[in-house]
Amino acid sequence: MRTRAAVAFQAGKPLEVTEVELDGPREGEVLVEIKATGICHTDEFTLSGADPEGLFPAILGHEGAGVVVEVGPGVKSVKPGDHVIPLYTPECRECDYCLNPKTNLCQSIRTTQGQGLMPDGTSRFRTLDGDPILHYMGCSTFSNYTVLPEIAVAKIREDAPFDKVCYIGCGVTTGVGAVVNTAKAEPGCRAVVFGLGGIGLNVIQGLRMIGADQIVGVDLNPSKKQMAERFGMTDFVNPSEVEGDLVPYLVNLTKGGADYSFDCTGNVKVMRTALECAHKGWGESIIIGVAPAGAEISTRPFQLVTGRTWKGTAFGGARGRTDVPKIVEWYMQGKIEIDPLITHTLSLDEINKGFDLMHSGESIRSVVLY
Amino acid sequence: MRTRAAVAFQAGKPLEVTEVELDGPREGEVLVEIKATGICHTDEFTLSGADPEGLFPAILGHEGAGVVVEVGPGVKSVKPGDHVIPLYTPECRECDYCLNPKTNLCQSIRTTQGQGLMPDGTSRFRTLDGDPILHYMGCSTFSNYTVLPEIAVAKIREDAPFDKVCYIGCGVTTGVGAVVNTAKAEPGCRAVVFGLGGIGLNVIQGLRMIGADQIVGVDLNPSKKQMAERFGMTDFVNPSEVEGDLVPYLVNLTKGGADYSFDCTGNVKVMRTALECAHKGWGESIIIGVAPAGAEISTRPFQLVTGRTWKGTAFGGARGRTDVPKIVEWYMQGKIEIDPLITHTLSLDEINKGFDLMHSGESIRSVVLY
Ligand SMILES: NC(=O)c1ccc[n+]([C@@H]2O[C@H](COP(=O)([O-])OP(=O)(O)OC[C@H]3O[C@@H](n4cnc5c(N)ncnc54)[C@H](O)[C@@H]3O)[C@@H](O)[C@H]2O)c1
Ligand SMILES: NC(=O)c1ccc[n+]([C@@H]2O[C@H](COP(=O)([O-])OP(=O)(O)OC[C@H]3O[C@@H](n4cnc5c(N)ncnc54)[C@H](O)[C@@H]3O)[C@@H](O)[C@H]2O)c1
Ligand SMILES: [Zn+2]
Ligand SMILES: [Zn+2]
Ligand SMILES: [Zn+2]
Ligand SMILES: [Zn+2]
Repeated sequence: MRTRAAVAFQAGKPLEVTEVELDGPREGEVLVEIKATGICHTDEFTLSGADPEGLFPAILGHEGAGVVVEVGPGVKSVKPGDHVIPLYTPECRECDYCLNPKTNLCQSIRTTQGQGLMPDGTSRFRTLDGDPILHYMGCSTFSNYTVLPEIAVAKIREDAPFDKVCYIGCGVTTGVGAVVNTAKAEPGCRAVVFGLGGIGLNVIQGLRMIGADQIVGVDLNPSKKQMAERFGMTDFVNPSEVEGDLVPYLVNLTKGGADYSFDCTGNVKVMRTALECAHKGWGESIIIGVAPAGAEISTRPFQLVTGRTWKGTAFGGARGRTDVPKIVEWYMQGKIEIDPLITHTLSLDEINKGFDLMHSGESIRSVVLY
Repeated sequence: MRTRAAVAFQAGKPLEVTEVELDGPREGEVLVEIKATGICHTDEFTLSGADPEGLFPAILGHEGAGVVVEVGPGVKSVKPGDHVIPLYTPECRECDYCLNPKTNLCQSIRTTQGQGLMPDGTSRFRTLDGDPILHYMGCSTFSNYTVLPEIAVAKIREDAPFDKVCYIGCGVTTGVGAVVNTAKAEPGCRAVVFGLGGIGLNVIQGLRMIGADQIVGVDLNPSKKQMAERFGMTDFVNPSEVEGDLVPYLVNLTKGGADYSFDCTGNVKVMRTALECAHKGWGESIIIGVAPAGAEISTRPFQLVTGRTWKGTAFGGARGRTDVPKIVEWYMQGKIEIDPLITHTLSLDEINKGFDLMHSGESIRSVVLY
């Protein structure tokens, strides 16, 4: 079939919206009509050429929602008409990782996914001239129709609005899941969240949902304060307004240190501050931000010997097929908010504007509607 | 009263064995006759002058066992005749730390303890000329008689031999506790232990006790292999015999990485290797070794984002009054061994020889018998 897609032909160049050829689903695969997709920093990281593992030409996008159109042989868990969210972290329920309750990092299709290919080692996308185009993060939601492995779609309730729940495909789950799955934060805890972009706001609302007592937000940009307060932030700290070292300031503000701290900036210096402002004896610091290639975190080992724990999280520790439908429920029940985070909606033709809005810091999340 | 003690009058000088004056126990304190004491790296660290927080003159020693001789007003949990192990990490059961199940770092007497004083801010030790001598880590087990806060003694069974269980006052609990309390390692796990000194051997036997499947020991000194095997090590790795990078070698040896890794060297480069050889998705690395002042650990944050956890432990995460008696039981029941680790016994007059044996690497543990 033919479908419209925004194709990344080259690093550092804008996407080109064009028609492409798409093969139907093979064994264990599903064809999905994408109804909406968010534009995430990770798409930008790859498109810019900064990601050393980025491959071109490819169809980017990994934060979508849509409807199953057709299923390949052997597919049992979804059928045409089902509403789904594509998963860049699949859940096969059979590999060593899926069978270990401590991780969500299913490895069953990791190699081919990293090569921009379906599990059988081929791509479903081609240019109209027949040149191959690669998949991206196993999703390629910047195409109106895309093919996904069955293990990489989460079935969700049918009354959930595509233009909102697409964000659960990455940012919402990353932030809320970091609180719920990775930190397993308890009611009454005190937390510090560094970086109040889309991820930080989702961490904040995760903390509000589980009943945190104090939610300190830290950002260099004071314009982030208002939305963060709306999402549950109780204290705002602008590091450029703090005299002296930020760590003792935050330790004092949280009456001894954070039970949980979260880096949502990707800055390795911030990651160190986040660890060191965690409470002696039991504070945990969780890295969510993605650092520039080669950057390293550091601290004195004494910080850990005296009881702090340093962790990280990918896709919020969520097992997609199991946990994404739950987060959709939480949204539908009003336990978490998404609507105010979708600051811009665009048509596919306007997709490059979404990247501009991200660069200028104007958007929290831009969503493309097909 | 008068008691014989080995006094550290000055950094970098040998201890002086001499008589000192000791005041009786005040409210909440107990007088203990020390029967045996181990000599630990931490005593050496302080005596050498390398510890920026070391204070002199002081009576060092923190790894003892003995008998309660007299109790001060208000003491309820022990009585004269009770056998006890002094605790450099007390357990008050009342402070915020004791009431938080995630930590063992009781803070109730931390400030005065760091100043070499009893909780009321004074010292019980004096020279015969009346000059004050400081306590050390709240223990001062290099004195035949010492005064301790009630919350800093663990009551143990009376048939436990002092010359062996004194080692439970630090090294045994640190190593075994790191496995049991901090890692909470499960039967069937694979582990890598860096450094096969006294601490590393105790980690190894902790892993054997809980039923680990694979226990890899890593040491630059091949003479450490034999004893480590006796304690349960299944594989020995000498980094100087490994071609190429040690991390992939250990990942391969453990079939994907260690479920738990332990640094028992105090070397920050080893700490990094220990983290990076932990299994993607769920591996935990635990720092036990004490690094030189100012040294820093570092790694790429990606190591944590892909599911590794970095932790540390002090006194093996043990709550002394509760957990030390249990470890004494395990020793008496034969679940852990101590006897082969006590390689040398000395009289108090020979105590400086114990430090020489440590420097030359001849001893695992030297114990002074009073
Ligand atoms: N681990 C995962 O699974 C995962 C998934 C998605 C995104 N991410 C990462 O999460 C991070 C945050 O994403 P986002 O979409 O919220 O980004 P964003 O750019 O919208 O927000 C980042 C915020 O951090 C603030 N900031 C920057 N430097 C700061 C500093 N030194 N101190 C305080 N605040 C500072 C900025 O002002 C901004 O508000 C990115 O690194 C992204 O790549 C991780
Ligand atoms: N966290 C705590 O509560 C606590 C308590 C007691 C001791 N410690 C610390 O634990 C550490 C170990 O104590 P120990 O008594 O076993 O010391 P030790 O000196 O007896 O043993 C250290 C071992 O590490 C080996 N080693 C050194 N560098 C190495 C390297 N680069 N690679 C591999 N092996 C290497 C040595 O050959 C030696 O066998 C020390 O740093 C000590 O201060 C911590
Ligand atoms: Zn994303
Ligand atoms: Zn899997
Ligand atoms: Zn010690
Ligand atoms: Zn306490």
